[in-house]
Amino acid sequence: MNQPRPPGLRALIEPALGETASLLDQTLDTLLPEPAGLEARLIEAMRYAVIGGGKRLRAFLVLQSGRLFGVDRRALARAAAAVECVHAYSLVHDDLPAMDDDDMRRGRPSVHRKFDEAAAILAGDALQAHAFTILAAPETHADPYVRCELMARLANAAGASGMVAGQMIDMSVEGKAADVTTITRLQRLKTGALISFACEAGAIMGKASPPMRHALLGFAQDLGLAFQIADDLLDVEGDDVIVGKKLGKDEARGKATFVKALGVERARSQAQVLAEQAVRHLDIFDEKADLLRAAAAWSVSRKG
Amino acid sequence: MNQPRPPGLRALIEPALGETASLLDQTLDTLLPEPAGLEARLIEAMRYAVIGGGKRLRAFLVLQSGRLFGVDRRALARAAAAVECVHAYSLVHDDLPAMDDDDMRRGRPSVHRKFDEAAAILAGDALQAHAFTILAAPETHADPYVRCELMARLANAAGASGMVAGQMIDMSVEGKAADVTTITRLQRLKTGALISFACEAGAIMGKASPPMRHALLGFAQDLGLAFQIADDLLDVEGDDVIVGKKLGKDEARGKATFVKALGVERARSQAQVLAEQAVRHLDIFDEKADLLRAAAAWSVSRKG
Repeated sequence: MNQPRPPGLRALIEPALGETASLLDQTLDTLLPEPAGLEARLIEAMRYAVIGGGKRLRAFLVLQSGRLFGVDRRALARAAAAVECVHAYSLVHDDLPAMDDDDMRRGRPSVHRKFDEAAAILAGDALQAHAFTILAAPETHADPYVRCELMARLANAAGASGMVAGQMIDMSVEGKAADVTTITRLQRLKTGALISFACEAGAIMGKASPPMRHALLGFAQDLGLAFQIADDLLDVEGDDVIVGKKLGKDEARGKATFVKALGVERARSQAQVLAEQAVRHLDIFDEKADLLRAAAAWSVSRKG
Repeated sequence: MNQPRPPGLRALIEPALGETASLLDQTLDTLLPEPAGLEARLIEAMRYAVIGGGKRLRAFLVLQSGRLFGVDRRALARAAAAVECVHAYSLVHDDLPAMDDDDMRRGRPSVHRKFDEAAAILAGDALQAHAFTILAAPETHADPYVRCELMARLANAAGASGMVAGQMIDMSVEGKAADVTTITRLQRLKTGALISFACEAGAIMGKASPPMRHALLGFAQDLGLAFQIADDLLDVEGDDVIVGKKLGKDEARGKATFVKALGVERARSQAQVLAEQAVRHLDIFDEKADLLRAAAAWSVSRKG
């Protein structure tokens, strides 16, 4: 029973992700300001960047990890919205011409193509600030120690010890030969840190016991890497229309990817091994964790 | 006695700003990570952006407003460092080619000239996150309610209801005729919001009474505008070498400034009126507020 348990659980995940996406769009619509005044374009760019698209994996992880500890769903939706603000801002900045220079994202023009570069830089900046506005409010959790811990962990996951460091390394090894150790560290920072925070957030809000929090972090680490390898594979083998962005760009730009370092076959089996390993961390939880188990299977079998 | 009380107090301000600058450089050196690993360049860019330059007005305001309520100086230095991280990140992003396209800042090449655009975008992003890392820690204040309030107010001052909105408006009115009302709102957001937070932070940390907090906010609002008008005047009349950046750019870019809307003479007298008005809010405080009073006089008489 230590496997991702297809196919029953896989059938659960798509509707659950769909529900998460609706909940997040509603929540973000409420939490973001309305476009008004001379800065209306900024708010429009923020909304465009974060509402109505994306897989919402990180939001899903917040909701499902918090559910294990009976945390209020509205509070979890707020924390999930904060994580999606940070994720969306990172994509907006990564897509900029000075960074990965991507014209399409989630099947639509990227923010700097739809608006302009200045608006994209500023919308990203404001989305990062907004994540902390959301988390700092008592509606997210009555206990200020919990709110402080959420913000401390998010800031750490997002900044120079996490996501941004990963993006910097990603740019710096472009066009160079990078070994699997380097790529693993890069990805643990670039995508893993925020995915880990998403799982940890539920545990923090639910005041989970240390073993349970540890289990979720172990799950997140393996899931994050499995998810990233699957992303690298999609860039080689996926369908542009389903994925919603131009593919094959990793190789064209000389990106350091798992596929480049391991080859397609070994990358695929490595992703599978990690997804199975991820699920094993969840043995401590009962069937309430089944959707998290299903997410691990989904992460390596998705088409987009 | 309702005036900025030159010249005695003016003589106090320069050494006090010098002390603030040393304290901040030390504090930021301790609080920022050391450059290491493949992301070393990111850390170097962050340190370059925030250590060893700048007037440190915002830090000074945190330190002096907190001092009114007997707040521990080390704790205030942390909050001041957080504010300077946000201020520095905003300058790094504002200087980018897609924004104000400035090659020089504080007498040195701007971050994207010294490093590159990607490093500048990412260093700015990481500095913003770092501000919250600093504020979230118990060393900043033992009371988690206070830490949450600091973070809520900073996020609000920095984001789409504050600084970033101001920058967006600044870009959007470029080359257009803007009236004083528009310019005032623009500047209250772009520079005023963070200056207000700097004064409020000391009051929050010292659990100041509402009238005292209100007084500091009134002071900050007037000081912020006075300071900005003085900046606009320096762009027209200042010395490039003393100011540390290329001047005359506001007019060249068609920026909406107080000088453009009011003319040099009216702008100068308006700054003076605001500086005097700022000081009147401080009547509620004893001589401990003299350095804040001196800052108001300095803000409109400085050469850089």
